[in-house]
Amino acid sequence: MSLGIGDFKSWYEKNREEIMRDFFTFLSFPSVSTDPKFAGETRKTAEWLNAYLNKMGMKSSVVDTVGHPVVFATHLAAGKDRPTLLIYQHYDVQPVDPLELWQSDPFKPAVRGGQVFARGAQDNKGQCFYSITAIRSFLELAKKSNVNLKVFIEGEEESGSKGTSDLLSKKTLDLSADQLLVIDFGLHRQGAPAITLGMRGLVGLTVTFNNSRIDLHSGSHGGIVMNPNRALVSTLNLLWDKKGKIQVPGFYDQVHAPSKSELSKLDLTFDPDDYKKKFGVRSYGMENGFSALESNWLRPTLEINGVRGGYSGPGVKTVIPAKAEAKITCRLVGDQDPDLIAKSVVEFIRANAPQGIEVESEIYPGSKAFWSSPDSHAINSVAQALGEVFSANCNYQLSGASVPIVRELVEASSAQAVLFGMGLEDDNIHAPNEHFGLDRFEKGFLTVGRILSLNHGS
Amino acid sequence: MSLGIGDFKSWYEKNREEIMRDFFTFLSFPSVSTDPKFAGETRKTAEWLNAYLNKMGMKSSVVDTVGHPVVFATHLAAGKDRPTLLIYQHYDVQPVDPLELWQSDPFKPAVRGGQVFARGAQDNKGQCFYSITAIRSFLELAKKSNVNLKVFIEGEEESGSKGTSDLLSKKTLDLSADQLLVIDFGLHRQGAPAITLGMRGLVGLTVTFNNSRIDLHSGSHGGIVMNPNRALVSTLNLLWDKKGKIQVPGFYDQVHAPSKSELSKLDLTFDPDDYKKKFGVRSYGMENGFSALESNWLRPTLEINGVRGGYSGPGVKTVIPAKAEAKITCRLVGDQDPDLIAKSVVEFIRANAPQGIEVESEIYPGSKAFWSSPDSHAINSVAQALGEVFSANCNYQLSGASVPIVRELVEASSAQAVLFGMGLEDDNIHAPNEHFGLDRFEKGFLTVGRILSLNHGS
Repeated sequence: MSLGIGDFKSWYEKNREEIMRDFFTFLSFPSVSTDPKFAGETRKTAEWLNAYLNKMGMKSSVVDTVGHPVVFATHLAAGKDRPTLLIYQHYDVQPVDPLELWQSDPFKPAVRGGQVFARGAQDNKGQCFYSITAIRSFLELAKKSNVNLKVFIEGEEESGSKGTSDLLSKKTLDLSADQLLVIDFGLHRQGAPAITLGMRGLVGLTVTFNNSRIDLHSGSHGGIVMNPNRALVSTLNLLWDKKGKIQVPGFYDQVHAPSKSELSKLDLTFDPDDYKKKFGVRSYGMENGFSALESNWLRPTLEINGVRGGYSGPGVKTVIPAKAEAKITCRLVGDQDPDLIAKSVVEFIRANAPQGIEVESEIYPGSKAFWSSPDSHAINSVAQALGEVFSANCNYQLSGASVPIVRELVEASSAQAVLFGMGLEDDNIHAPNEHFGLDRFEKGFLTVGRILSLNHGS
Repeated sequence: MSLGIGDFKSWYEKNREEIMRDFFTFLSFPSVSTDPKFAGETRKTAEWLNAYLNKMGMKSSVVDTVGHPVVFATHLAAGKDRPTLLIYQHYDVQPVDPLELWQSDPFKPAVRGGQVFARGAQDNKGQCFYSITAIRSFLELAKKSNVNLKVFIEGEEESGSKGTSDLLSKKTLDLSADQLLVIDFGLHRQGAPAITLGMRGLVGLTVTFNNSRIDLHSGSHGGIVMNPNRALVSTLNLLWDKKGKIQVPGFYDQVHAPSKSELSKLDLTFDPDDYKKKFGVRSYGMENGFSALESNWLRPTLEINGVRGGYSGPGVKTVIPAKAEAKITCRLVGDQDPDLIAKSVVEFIRANAPQGIEVESEIYPGSKAFWSSPDSHAINSVAQALGEVFSANCNYQLSGASVPIVRELVEASSAQAVLFGMGLEDDNIHAPNEHFGLDRFEKGFLTVGRILSLNHGS
């Protein structure tokens, strides 16, 4: 007996009030993983989830890590001959600052215009909760599941996943699966169902330009001393040519253009008016010859995420600072190696800094780009479920952003990965007034329910 | 009866203990003018000075301003036919942060190796106190002064002189004088007496590069959006050519090369080894074709005193900031007009910013360069006194830094100005462990005493 969209819809209607009540309880935990002062609340969130999953009929436990705990739940009654689905989620959220810009308390969910406003409403408590609600409904409706289920919910996605990564490296959990569903992604356009076939890699670094031993007075020394701020702008400027091409030798060596068939799958539609309206962007930085989404999905970038040198208070201060600093990240594609790229960038900066300027550098651990196989059984069943729920053909897209833990989960599970979700780019994730449409919550629920049903078989 | 160096020396020997006790009391007041929390202590300092000057036999008063008070004292017994000397000083000091780098309490003067360590030990309580001590000794030794004296001691030199400037504009004090001694300067080299013939002007501005309405995720948006940090470095880089020449149109139009005779007066000696040892400077920024001191004294500069954009904490944050900012000051020479120069710089930056970037700007009030007449009676008597005290010919120098109030004092007094002092560039003024040599305190005392004596006449 195959469960269709209609079955899940009816179940949802019947249980809507309870689902919302539990969802709002989940949202009310301030599980801000990056701030040690919320460590207690973060654990409470894990314990609440754990109790919820056990109550649903899964076998769940709170697994301690050197960081925040992982909630790991299984339902393996289908037996070894049947497929296993591993679902990845995270229960932690970003900080809420600046609090004064929120229109309602970030930890008291409020519904306005069909949207739930709360920290985590979308990223990723919303996506997490429709996913486990879908499992709950499936287990209730299917009576006996023909598919094995594993749910892995980490508490550090927003703060670097150190404990999670350490736990994975220890291989204490059996994460082996046929399919890995990473439900932490979004739709490029409202109403257009989409699977994310890959994402860029990432590497970060800091460079510091040092000159004098102490800050100097710009009157007494100005004209004599090379100002590290000037050294920084003149050196960083060399990182791009006029066409926006990055000038670091070898930077593009491991960049592979996607095949025509890969390209033809991608929905590269970009509406600049809509983009401008959403984000207020007035100035663009695309490499010549590449469209907006090609630049964001298929090309590597070098971004100066931070510059700092000297005085930045009100008025002026006549200082020549002893040092100036830049924080840089590169998004990577193809086979670009994080460490090699970071080293090449540092080397280029060092070679081009004015004579005498001492360049200090620090390189942070990075991750390579990830592409899932575009034609796996896993992809196809998610595409079918999305197509049924949205009554539209599934689109394929990429993500300019990175979820580094995905590569480790793929290794740990040996599964075919599918990356998808119901986020929209103007949900204000990581920002004040994060929100998530209740319509998308329901569509997410229906999609996950239908995926389980498709794997359950008829 | 002309008082010679010997007379002042004997007086100093006799009173040394008392002078030091009073000097240390003066140093112990935390008269940090920029920090409102020290407003009470700043006023107490003024009141202590006022009492001191009255006790010396001057007619002193604390003159309120819209900022910190001015201490104004006169001794006009010489009569209208005799010359009047106006001495400028300030009793306020810079903040002491970072306090942890001080080897002793900045407001508990400590003598180590012949140097007094305290905030203000040199700048300018040291120079202020040897000056008024010299007046005290002169009044005692001369019995009846043949020179009229006015002492103007402000409390806001380190915080913009707003109240002082406002007081001067009201013309309530009679500051008319023949000579104005501004004793807030220094010696370019230890042991080499020097008069500062002029100083550069100054103007400051802030430019802000705006793009998106909010900070954007550098994964989701990187490649599409022009990062304001990148826009800032590419635009600011255009401010100089490879030879260090500032590229703002018209920037050098009002720069006049000094005459050969002016140039020949200047001591342009610069020891790069010594400079490196003192300040740790490894990278130089001189305009091609100009020596270190020519660049600092005779050429205008453009310095980026601050850059700030995006993230500057530990690690990395994958942000494309909504805006980036630079704080710039220009040192001015010749007839360069502060406002015109600032506007030209802003215009150049605006014209060269990437398309779509919105450039906001703010320009702060500036001051033109100032040169005193190099052959006045005032200059000559200070040169003679310095020559006698140091047993060496007086040198002439310029200052790369600016004391904007000097121009206003020259206007208010209609006097011939002489700028000098006993500071050395490694006294750590404005920095931790500020210090002043007791030998220079005494030489300063002797110099001012001898100047008074020379004007007193035989």
